[in-house]
Amino acid sequence: MFHPAASALASILSTPTRLTRAGRFEAVLNHIAEEVEGLADRGRPADYIPLLAEVDPRHFGMAVAEADGTVYGVGDWKRPFSTQSITKVFTLALALSLEGEHLWRGVGREPSGNPFNSLVQLEHENGVPRNPFINAGALVVTDRLQALTADAAGRALELLRTESGNPTIDFVPEVAACEATHGGRNAALAHFMASCGNLTTPVPDLLAAYFWQCSIAASCKDLALAAGFLARHGTRTDGSALLTKSQAKQINAMMLTCGTYDAAGEFAYRVGLPGKSGVGGGIIAIVPGVCTLCVWSPGLDRRGNSVAGVLALDRFTTLTGLSVF
Amino acid sequence: MFHPAASALASILSTPTRLTRAGRFEAVLNHIAEEVEGLADRGRPADYIPLLAEVDPRHFGMAVAEADGTVYGVGDWKRPFSTQSITKVFTLALALSLEGEHLWRGVGREPSGNPFNSLVQLEHENGVPRNPFINAGALVVTDRLQALTADAAGRALELLRTESGNPTIDFVPEVAACEATHGGRNAALAHFMASCGNLTTPVPDLLAAYFWQCSIAASCKDLALAAGFLARHGTRTDGSALLTKSQAKQINAMMLTCGTYDAAGEFAYRVGLPGKSGVGGGIIAIVPGVCTLCVWSPGLDRRGNSVAGVLALDRFTTLTGLSVF
Amino acid sequence: MFHPAASALASILSTPTRLTRAGRFEAVLNHIAEEVEGLADRGRPADYIPLLAEVDPRHFGMAVAEADGTVYGVGDWKRPFSTQSITKVFTLALALSLEGEHLWRGVGREPSGNPFNSLVQLEHENGVPRNPFINAGALVVTDRLQALTADAAGRALELLRTESGNPTIDFVPEVAACEATHGGRNAALAHFMASCGNLTTPVPDLLAAYFWQCSIAASCKDLALAAGFLARHGTRTDGSALLTKSQAKQINAMMLTCGTYDAAGEFAYRVGLPGKSGVGGGIIAIVPGVCTLCVWSPGLDRRGNSVAGVLALDRFTTLTGLSVF
Amino acid sequence: MFHPAASALASILSTPTRLTRAGRFEAVLNHIAEEVEGLADRGRPADYIPLLAEVDPRHFGMAVAEADGTVYGVGDWKRPFSTQSITKVFTLALALSLEGEHLWRGVGREPSGNPFNSLVQLEHENGVPRNPFINAGALVVTDRLQALTADAAGRALELLRTESGNPTIDFVPEVAACEATHGGRNAALAHFMASCGNLTTPVPDLLAAYFWQCSIAASCKDLALAAGFLARHGTRTDGSALLTKSQAKQINAMMLTCGTYDAAGEFAYRVGLPGKSGVGGGIIAIVPGVCTLCVWSPGLDRRGNSVAGVLALDRFTTLTGLSVF
Repeated sequence: MFHPAASALASILSTPTRLTRAGRFEAVLNHIAEEVEGLADRGRPADYIPLLAEVDPRHFGMAVAEADGTVYGVGDWKRPFSTQSITKVFTLALALSLEGEHLWRGVGREPSGNPFNSLVQLEHENGVPRNPFINAGALVVTDRLQALTADAAGRALELLRTESGNPTIDFVPEVAACEATHGGRNAALAHFMASCGNLTTPVPDLLAAYFWQCSIAASCKDLALAAGFLARHGTRTDGSALLTKSQAKQINAMMLTCGTYDAAGEFAYRVGLPGKSGVGGGIIAIVPGVCTLCVWSPGLDRRGNSVAGVLALDRFTTLTGLSVF
Repeated sequence: MFHPAASALASILSTPTRLTRAGRFEAVLNHIAEEVEGLADRGRPADYIPLLAEVDPRHFGMAVAEADGTVYGVGDWKRPFSTQSITKVFTLALALSLEGEHLWRGVGREPSGNPFNSLVQLEHENGVPRNPFINAGALVVTDRLQALTADAAGRALELLRTESGNPTIDFVPEVAACEATHGGRNAALAHFMASCGNLTTPVPDLLAAYFWQCSIAASCKDLALAAGFLARHGTRTDGSALLTKSQAKQINAMMLTCGTYDAAGEFAYRVGLPGKSGVGGGIIAIVPGVCTLCVWSPGLDRRGNSVAGVLALDRFTTLTGLSVF
Repeated sequence: MFHPAASALASILSTPTRLTRAGRFEAVLNHIAEEVEGLADRGRPADYIPLLAEVDPRHFGMAVAEADGTVYGVGDWKRPFSTQSITKVFTLALALSLEGEHLWRGVGREPSGNPFNSLVQLEHENGVPRNPFINAGALVVTDRLQALTADAAGRALELLRTESGNPTIDFVPEVAACEATHGGRNAALAHFMASCGNLTTPVPDLLAAYFWQCSIAASCKDLALAAGFLARHGTRTDGSALLTKSQAKQINAMMLTCGTYDAAGEFAYRVGLPGKSGVGGGIIAIVPGVCTLCVWSPGLDRRGNSVAGVLALDRFTTLTGLSVF
Repeated sequence: MFHPAASALASILSTPTRLTRAGRFEAVLNHIAEEVEGLADRGRPADYIPLLAEVDPRHFGMAVAEADGTVYGVGDWKRPFSTQSITKVFTLALALSLEGEHLWRGVGREPSGNPFNSLVQLEHENGVPRNPFINAGALVVTDRLQALTADAAGRALELLRTESGNPTIDFVPEVAACEATHGGRNAALAHFMASCGNLTTPVPDLLAAYFWQCSIAASCKDLALAAGFLARHGTRTDGSALLTKSQAKQINAMMLTCGTYDAAGEFAYRVGLPGKSGVGGGIIAIVPGVCTLCVWSPGLDRRGNSVAGVLALDRFTTLTGLSVF
């Protein structure tokens, strides 16, 4: 499955050379793009909403942003795609920065062992979702951010714009509308949690905020840059602290244990980095202290993660040795 | 626990006497009322909505309606109470009479083994509720009746009025409003089933129809008379057929196996009759071919059935030998 | 699907004739046998143990035993088959007669809503099975009978022999051995309950007693006669009381709500009688106060009940009007 | 809760000093031991077997082994304790080294979201356990190792002895016997998986091998040294490869996502290292490429992890900055 050039590349990467790190990252990205080119089965785009289903599955882009803001990319790395669940990381960071430890009264920090939109565990655990990355947990996080700011989706958008330096990142109203139309399961989750007393925002308002934030479109470049605070132990691009070092560590730990739906274990041992995927086919990943990655390819595996995206991250950590393990 | 007069009564009932059946039923009802009088713990009224919680738990009424329409009663048997889930029997009868076997495509006929408002089984079984008496199943039944008549709650009310001969039976708007306010769990059930494609009515309209029908207030006398068609194999008071004999048998069978929440097994072996309870403290029960019973006392056990109501029905079948087993 | 003679038969049955009840039952049985003859799909024999899988699926037998011991039959009604779970009724009757209400401390009386050999509910409910007819519950009942008599299987056999008047009914050692070989799931259930403190007999001894009782072979005639005490409110053939009237009612109620695996609801509304099925293809059913039925045909539906057996009982109650509803 | 010296220590650790790493680790360990000394509530020892319940909860030991074999310790770091589930890491390493990727046909690599000895998920997933660290998964791993070596427990012991350089590490027969006596739940898990065809060893033999391996007693020093291959990317002390680099990464990833029962998420964000705990009160943790830690204190929290152990590891990563995040 891997390109014959791999061993040649590996030897380049492992021998002392005069290549700068920049040069090395670019070489790795180009190499991975070639490998992905030859990939026979890239999975199928999400089909639960039409706007995602019609995206061309042959898109592939990947970006690496160093902790200092230097950014490299390959393929469609500047083309915006639907961020979907990746936004959950940004709303979580905002809610945690504002609410602090209180946030964890209403949402847990454990892997769920159940599909991301399951009602079962939620009922057994009295309306307190397992973690902030399953849908129910993200609804709680959005609820708290909405209560504190009155505009959860707007704050998430603003954070993405500021940290990426790209003011053109925006909502896609058609996607938000489409999510609402097909949002029965999320409505069920929200009404159930409301009945358990674990929501403060009226359910329709909460769902609106949630669907708007899911609709944000951004590119690999944008997201790799915007997530940089997680590689910088909580520090924003302007040097101010969005999160404490401990909070940044918490989010990274949760991305590793819960960030890729029901495949977090597999992602952890294949990629070995904190990561968060979205059904738009994007994945962000963090090498703490070093860099942030974002990859995008719309075809998904049966668990909802981008097929080429997981492969690309797997190859990146293998070729660079940058896994946390 | 039982009154010392019991054995005396039993001997009266079992010896050949000149008592008419009417006389015997009246004697039994009076005897039961005395026993209930001495009952130390009658449980607590439902407290999930304030209007139910504030009902005096010392109320007790019981009525027996013979298949020919003769009706007897004791205590508060003419005092209206909140019928709640008892109405599910009437909407089921109406939906089954209009929709026939098609109805069972969207709702099962098996005991659930889970609480009446659980989401767990619903998720495992892809949005098809186990039976028409758990809340999810009753929502499906209401959905079908609403689709066919555009006024599910109105039809249920009309059936109760016609069969009881009491045109003053009515909705209680305050109760319907209160149910809506505390209806998050039912909203969750409905949104989930909608997301599975098992509902045709828009969720807010369906919930409104459901809450209105739950709000109907009627007396033991009204309900014993109105349920008479289940003792008459489907025949209404005017002699016309509401249900086929087979459909009446189906509903009776489901009342026996699923009619009293998570305590159907216990109800079956203690009472031995098809029955349906409501959290307002009412229970109807059917002796096929013979008579219909309704008992009311607001105090509930931990499974949501009237404490004095179950006792009264238990005593009735013991004293009269009218169990189906 | 039904024989053209049905309406002719129905008219005979419903018109006042000079037929004795004996004559009528025989006519009904013959009629049903003809209908079954034309049945295209009779399901498939159980295949979890080879000795059951190799039984010819075209066998069909049916017997009716009146409360006074008069017995009629049709087809293979005198041919022994593997009773399997039907024996659970007899061990339950013996354990209840000896242990009384204490029995219910270790096993419930509610429908389970899960497959007969599921571990899930057992774990959620701390090792107390839902009812005596799922495997876990039958293991508890056998445990109690074993503790009280030191020979649970022997006592069940003795009861079957005495009540049927047939001393040749016996265990089938090959079947018991085969059950043990394929008994991993039952071993899991037993070890789990032992770990919860809900068993007194050592697990290997208990499993042996359980597998031996399942191996008993008896005919429709034998079983219809042997179950007669359930139609006679607890009275044995010799006039002595095996069970109190209340205990007999309890068992009948549990057979109706839990006797046919995960299809009890469907059985209740189609047949409308207390019944207990076994994976050998047999089913017994009770018309309290009137008669006992046993039908046998090895082909099963997906829930483990005999296809022709359920049909035959359905037709019997339809043709005779003997349903409890 | 933390000792006032903490900030002083932190400043020492963070300023450039002439302290060797050895000196720094020793300072950190001594500091942590002082903090633990002041800990008011250390939880309670496991009580499911008497031999664990009677251990003095005030024991505390901690060891750090650098990748090169240099080892430091504090408190009871040379005192053997019951390793219990920590041994699962060593049997997993052995089975993975012998069986390779085939191992994952019978056991998954995902967090479970359920207690370590639950039967529920196992049944839903047809006898394939979620991961090798819940009991069911460890039984599968032991089964494979037993099939390949005929002495799974002996091989685990041998690995511990060789890698720690301590030939006196041994089984504790009384503990193995005690585990067997209280092993009903594990027997249930094994019989269930056997019934699904996911075991090759006869259940009693498998359980024996499993209980023996759980009984091994070793010290913090022993375990920190013995787990060194996980910090050295799979390399044993003698320089040979026990695991490939990729396999070592897999095990580390699984320890992070699944190694501390139902608290893996919390452990990940508090400690931020791959870790594996046992109900004897021990925990091992890995800093890939740097060192291996083992801590022991018998008092457990409600999820079965050592209270002082988790605190000590939390402090260690905070004071040294050695988290993977």
